Amino acid sequence: MKNKIKVVAFDADDTLWVNEPYFQETERRFCALLEDFLPPHSVSQELLKTETDNLRLYGYGIKGFTLCMLETAYRVSDGTAHPRLTDDVIRLGRELLLKPVELLEGAEEVLDALQGEYRLVLATKGDLLDQERKLKQSGLEGYFHHVEVMSGKEAADYQKLLKRLDCVPDKFMMVGNSVKSDVLPVLELQGYAAHVPFHTTWAHEQHEHTPEHPNLVRLNAIQEIVPYLIR
Amino acid sequence: MKNKIKVVAFDADDTLWVNEPYFQETERRFCALLEDFLPPHSVSQELLKTETDNLRLYGYGIKGFTLCMLETAYRVSDGTAHPRLTDDVIRLGRELLLKPVELLEGAEEVLDALQGEYRLVLATKGDLLDQERKLKQSGLEGYFHHVEVMSGKEAADYQKLLKRLDCVPDKFMMVGNSVKSDVLPVLELQGYAAHVPFHTTWAHEQHEHTPEHPNLVRLNAIQEIVPYLIR
Repeated sequence: MKNKIKVVAFDADDTLWVNEPYFQETERRFCALLEDFLPPHSVSQELLKTETDNLRLYGYGIKGFTLCMLETAYRVSDGTAHPRLTDDVIRLGRELLLKPVELLEGAEEVLDALQGEYRLVLATKGDLLDQERKLKQSGLEGYFHHVEVMSGKEAADYQKLLKRLDCVPDKFMMVGNSVKSDVLPVLELQGYAAHVPFHTTWAHEQHEHTPEHPNLVRLNAIQEIVPYLIR
Repeated sequence: MKNKIKVVAFDADDTLWVNEPYFQETERRFCALLEDFLPPHSVSQELLKTETDNLRLYGYGIKGFTLCMLETAYRVSDGTAHPRLTDDVIRLGRELLLKPVELLEGAEEVLDALQGEYRLVLATKGDLLDQERKLKQSGLEGYFHHVEVMSGKEAADYQKLLKRLDCVPDKFMMVGNSVKSDVLPVLELQGYAAHVPFHTTWAHEQHEHTPEHPNLVRLNAIQEIVPYLIR
């Protein structure tokens, strides 16, 4: 495998740096704001419903998430919450946009080991400006030959990315924590995928089982990709 | 000039299709929602202030604009508005995201005349998913060799775009309605720019005067670019 692959693309959120725990912390605080109306667990369910319903309209990222919290708050409180709640929720979103970037263990070490040997790409969903901010703050920008913020990560989106990179699928490997977004669509195109589980996954990204596939590498930690790709 | 240029990039909003009038219509409806608190003109000023303050955090696009309307509503009403206002404003934002794409006169004719002669690029700010939606709906997708949704349009952003396109500035022309975003930064890099005025411009994009510059082409209508580029 390692003789074929030329391009190694990395997911960013929860693969190179912390993301989902920040969203979950925000969600907990959001649920607490509505505890007079509904128990936290039920508010969470309502929020996920709003997010799922709006995904095609808002896409991924913090601004859409904030709008979903606001819509959920209105629905859950049946329009009876204090107007200050809107302000509180907007502030939760702003704080999420200002979170420091915390690199995951081994992320930089891996990029450092692979640079020069492979064309390294960052391929992530989310708000364009926010992902650019995080990349800049991460200090990892210099490792990447190409950065792509994608509106989705389905097979057709990867096809577009490969076209941009002028790369055929069997010279491409995607490394990421989401089976649904980083693994399955790439395998579908006959590319290679390396799955690095993260301890927590957004409900929308959860996927029942990891498939068996000759092009799939299962890692326990991101550092394990190095011996696969470099002798 | 026409012998040198290889890549012609087009701005999208208010260059190829209608955008600002939709925002202005939404803003009028937003101001009307707050008329019990402040006259429309003052609400507009407050909204522009919010947008300007948040630009670095939210970037461009409808989701950030909606969050700015919500923040402004809270401030203008001093937290005394009915909670339904939040719901009304979120709905205004959703409607803006669902507006049909209305091509500007001559847009497709120009792309059709230039295709095959030049590499055509779409270079636009805004929400990633929303611009992709508009491009798809516009029917213009097939004309473009490359589509770039940018988080900003300053000289450094164009430099990145040129690098992606593997194009030097003096083989590049940008066509757009904003002197600030489509003309000045490109001239700064010694590229070419064609300015097509649109009848209305967002306050944030307004620029006092169009410069005199040998690399600048002033058009009254987008169709006038064709004789410049093709004999």
